[in-house]
Amino acid sequence: MRKKNTTNNARKVFARKLKEFRVQNFLSQEELADMAGLHRTYVGSVERGERNISIDNIDRLASALNINIKDLLNDE
Amino acid sequence: MRKKNTTNNARKVFARKLKEFRVQNFLSQEELADMAGLHRTYVGSVERGERNISIDNIDRLASALNINIKDLLNDE
Repeated sequence: MRKKNTTNNARKVFARKLKEFRVQNFLSQEELADMAGLHRTYVGSVERGERNISIDNIDRLASALNINIKDLLNDE
Repeated sequence: MRKKNTTNNARKVFARKLKEFRVQNFLSQEELADMAGLHRTYVGSVERGERNISIDNIDRLASALNINIKDLLNDE
């Protein structure tokens, strides 16, 4: 099984947009993590693009922020 | 760390849209898997909503289909 050499662009976009929406909502990483049922350090590492986040956790974070998932993946 | 009880809606939408775009492009699961550097059985299980797919693999599948990731997560 050959893995393509990707730039993980989606991961970077998600990291940036997540932080953007969190800050817009005046939430700390810990507050957002609590709302999404995740750990604070996990949210921090996602915002740094270190984690290959799964779709279920993307769903949790979007729900906590009351936005559509696609807003977290839209590089505009 | 408390997990929220979610319906995994994003996972279901992704499963449905992935299959939709694959079929529109006249690709088999195996062909799409090869193009994305993934395994055929993995693509099958993603299309059945069995897998909690990661953002990097979502990225690979969207790139293989030459579409934007958000098209795979948009329930419309």
